[in-house]
Amino acid sequence: MLNIIGLGLRGTKSITLESFEVMKSCDSVYFETYTSISPGSTMADLRNALGRKLLEAGRDFIESEKDIIDESRDTKVCLLVTGDPLSATTHNQLRLDAMKAGVEVRIFENSSIISVIPGVFGLMHYRFGPPVSIPFVSRSFFPTSVYDKIEKNISMDLHTLLLLDLKDGKTMPVQEAVRILEELERRRKGRILEPERDICVAIAVSQPGQRLVFGTMGSIKKSGVEGNPAALVLPSTLNDSEETFLNEFAERL
Amino acid sequence: MLNIIGLGLRGTKSITLESFEVMKSCDSVYFETYTSISPGSTMADLRNALGRKLLEAGRDFIESEKDIIDESRDTKVCLLVTGDPLSATTHNQLRLDAMKAGVEVRIFENSSIISVIPGVFGLMHYRFGPPVSIPFVSRSFFPTSVYDKIEKNISMDLHTLLLLDLKDGKTMPVQEAVRILEELERRRKGRILEPERDICVAIAVSQPGQRLVFGTMGSIKKSGVEGNPAALVLPSTLNDSEETFLNEFAERL
Repeated sequence: MLNIIGLGLRGTKSITLESFEVMKSCDSVYFETYTSISPGSTMADLRNALGRKLLEAGRDFIESEKDIIDESRDTKVCLLVTGDPLSATTHNQLRLDAMKAGVEVRIFENSSIISVIPGVFGLMHYRFGPPVSIPFVSRSFFPTSVYDKIEKNISMDLHTLLLLDLKDGKTMPVQEAVRILEELERRRKGRILEPERDICVAIAVSQPGQRLVFGTMGSIKKSGVEGNPAALVLPSTLNDSEETFLNEFAERL
Repeated sequence: MLNIIGLGLRGTKSITLESFEVMKSCDSVYFETYTSISPGSTMADLRNALGRKLLEAGRDFIESEKDIIDESRDTKVCLLVTGDPLSATTHNQLRLDAMKAGVEVRIFENSSIISVIPGVFGLMHYRFGPPVSIPFVSRSFFPTSVYDKIEKNISMDLHTLLLLDLKDGKTMPVQEAVRILEELERRRKGRILEPERDICVAIAVSQPGQRLVFGTMGSIKKSGVEGNPAALVLPSTLNDSEETFLNEFAERL
């Protein structure tokens, strides 16, 4: 049996009571470090909490899938995933492949940055368009489709959650993301990501170093604000309660 | 101190390890039953797990807000909320009012139906437009703005999560929601909610009676499928992996 278990945003602290029992009863426990980022000590904390070895499923996660499925045929296996277990296609693919191999799959959901960020800023879920991912760019790779997606949300007066790409166990630095947004604006000659546009920065949400700030793109750049993991929100027009909440819950830069 | 704690979708089973410690250490524990629905035995389970009285904050939740804040001045208070604690404006208003009264507020996030439903069906978050709530209607109250919101998502080729209104501790019956969608189509003479349109039905997600089905609006109506709590998804065009996932993870009616 394969149990795909979401850890939420706090490492071992946000394991649910039921998931913890399941983890303890498993024959082997894999910890997925490929699609998202956990608080720094999570691997060691999990090892202590469970009192046993953890198997890391990192960059080679896709390749180790076959092993995980094979093992799940006759034994009880856990795959631990930061955040919600089914937010990434990778995990639904594993779920499908395991089912096709005749393995029983159980899912244990948990909180996801996607649903948590709106609430902590006091912004309303029903005013968000689709989230947009900002990838690391290079001279030969600079996808302007990111701009189209942001533009669509803005044209519908919807807020946009910007998810930052991951590298070496960290999210893209906030300042690098802002520079990419500026460069998109230059290349597309649009008028949506100008220095006066407000942007919200969420750092280490739900973790000890949590920081929520907002300001114009210009002021966020000038402030040099950084931190990890980070995510951004481009708010559209705020309604009255959102305006009140954002001003009280986040720090204006 | 006021701790606003999300229970997730499974009642006591989805309390996180950290939240459980906080709950046990509080002087009083309120259980909010006004904005969302927990599995049936949650109130009794919580009482057993904590070994003490729970205070229910139900319909009169808004009125009891002042008491909760007053109590949080000098003692440690918990407010337990099904799902994620900050998905409803009500709780962000309480958070704000408590802060203004000089009370320290701590938030403990958990999973929300909003982020979990896409994944269980194998649909991708970045292909969802804003969620839309379906309210109970009457002869004198029939808001067609619901139709506009759905139409906008469809015109952008985005999936729509339909959240069903609550009454007497249950979500609106699935068949009633389908009838409301049909009536909206009749009144607006549109061509978006016709009997041939596919719709997904999620019943008791993450709970023992979980059922995931999809089919045309006509077939869902004919099947008479029901269950509680329920939520619907109106998918737009499916991409290849979504099509594969949906066909394997949900039952076709």
